[in-house]
Amino acid sequence: MQRLAIGIDIGGQSSKCGVVTQDGTILEQSVVTSLVDCFDDYLKLLADTVKELVRKTADRGVAVGIGIGAPNANRLDGTIRYAPNLRWARGADGKPGVIYLADRLEKATGLHVRITNDANAAARGERTYGIAKGIDDFIMITLGTGVGSGIISHGRLVYGHDGFAGELGHVCVEQNGRQCNCGLKGCLETYASAMGVARTAREFLQKDSRESLLRKLDPEKISSKDIYDAAVQGDAMAKEIFSYTGRILGRAMGDFVKFSSPQAIVLFGGLTKSREFFHDEMVQAMNDNLMQIWKGQIQILYSSLKESDAAILGASSMVWSPEE
Amino acid sequence: MQRLAIGIDIGGQSSKCGVVTQDGTILEQSVVTSLVDCFDDYLKLLADTVKELVRKTADRGVAVGIGIGAPNANRLDGTIRYAPNLRWARGADGKPGVIYLADRLEKATGLHVRITNDANAAARGERTYGIAKGIDDFIMITLGTGVGSGIISHGRLVYGHDGFAGELGHVCVEQNGRQCNCGLKGCLETYASAMGVARTAREFLQKDSRESLLRKLDPEKISSKDIYDAAVQGDAMAKEIFSYTGRILGRAMGDFVKFSSPQAIVLFGGLTKSREFFHDEMVQAMNDNLMQIWKGQIQILYSSLKESDAAILGASSMVWSPEE
Repeated sequence: MQRLAIGIDIGGQSSKCGVVTQDGTILEQSVVTSLVDCFDDYLKLLADTVKELVRKTADRGVAVGIGIGAPNANRLDGTIRYAPNLRWARGADGKPGVIYLADRLEKATGLHVRITNDANAAARGERTYGIAKGIDDFIMITLGTGVGSGIISHGRLVYGHDGFAGELGHVCVEQNGRQCNCGLKGCLETYASAMGVARTAREFLQKDSRESLLRKLDPEKISSKDIYDAAVQGDAMAKEIFSYTGRILGRAMGDFVKFSSPQAIVLFGGLTKSREFFHDEMVQAMNDNLMQIWKGQIQILYSSLKESDAAILGASSMVWSPEE
Repeated sequence: MQRLAIGIDIGGQSSKCGVVTQDGTILEQSVVTSLVDCFDDYLKLLADTVKELVRKTADRGVAVGIGIGAPNANRLDGTIRYAPNLRWARGADGKPGVIYLADRLEKATGLHVRITNDANAAARGERTYGIAKGIDDFIMITLGTGVGSGIISHGRLVYGHDGFAGELGHVCVEQNGRQCNCGLKGCLETYASAMGVARTAREFLQKDSRESLLRKLDPEKISSKDIYDAAVQGDAMAKEIFSYTGRILGRAMGDFVKFSSPQAIVLFGGLTKSREFFHDEMVQAMNDNLMQIWKGQIQILYSSLKESDAAILGASSMVWSPEE
């Protein structure tokens, strides 16, 4: 019988669970709400769902472990620490606390559990099933609501001494720049995420008086999708917003290369749908910020995984080679 | 008989060779000039010196390999590539070329040869014999004429896909900042090296008219040692130069932590002699640029190796565990 892995992607609204084969096929999947107040209740939901999935696929293989990608998850001790967006991860005082998720889910299901943060899981998934197959040194950057990253060096994820390595979304790209939710200013995430692009739009709308399709929208509600739609229609300001984003992201990517000298940088997430409007500026800015030995040498790849499946696949990939 | 390693530190002026025991004692050492025009001549000098050292220590142990730290050295293919400051490393056209040093020295000595760049060697040395013994995740930053770095992650040096990882001296700390020799602008090295501190002094002297001991010196010849001496005498401008340097270095260190989340950052090199004048500002600036999870958590260590021995020790350490 073939070996199967359970992949779980925990988000603020819902948690997706899937049963995955070693070649990356999702045999069954199921969604659990994350909007539960108490961890014990959430754990029961999750464990029941896992058991049901195992039962449903029992004729096709043997589930050998669970991999979880979750915000603020720490691979080294199996905890989720101070995750502001997970309702069930709060302590008795109502504040985000420390949840021993891996340990508790192991006891509840009898399966080995490996957890890591979502961007690390995405990097693992891309290396196991996606565009980065066989690449030993690459940096995964997830451009979603925020900016996450997972760094693969010599074929292994870089975890750091405490499990929290790879917070490239919070590298400072602008001294005294935009205020970030993390408390710092000028973080890459405040510019190169869906949120960041919307902030750029509000800034651009305020600082000049040019005509733009974006002026028809409520500035507070502008989304990166609105800006993309305007750019597709040829709107000059919308296009400039993406160029600006690409330049900041590319410059930051140049500095990342100086750290781990990756063969490739892999981009993933909602914002990459707009890449036609920022790719060229991003690559140019990256190369402008690289020494001669690297100019033109770093591959820029976009995830090849279906976005709806990628998180489950990434989480499940930890089951196959837990040491990486 | 005990095993012995040959450590070679190649510099632009001279190359230091030493025979090292596994506990980091240098039994014998010797210096060879690097001011030779032709690689074949340099190779002969180096090989003869190695053989002589092996002969001299034959009664105390068996030499099992050679480790070399050199500028622009690449561990993966054993080459030195385009090193502008090594006279013998030029091609027929007089320009820096590609030298297959490891391979040639192996043939000339019969010993295994491992090479890496000087900052990586320093990191390895610190982990094998120095202050970073037993630390699996740390970043070594060498503050000398330039700024070099070696990154240890999960107990191994990060080499990247091409062997050139760890060029943190060229991370951009100031957009459109000072011109660096590497071709880029605003590199950390242009601020936080001995050269960089001297540049800061020239800038400070020009932009304000305050009294300072530094005004007695020829601005073009000011060295970091002059500035240190002035600071020791209580000179306000000299002290501010170091504070400014510390703030820039600390801010950059904060961003480095977000990459690999090291347990410690280890500082080494001539500029660390002035640390009493920049340490506090550096640590403050680093913590100001860290998220809550890391504030106050990263150890700042200074190399415990004698500076004159450190390069030989670092190079030799590659012999003991070549895979790291």
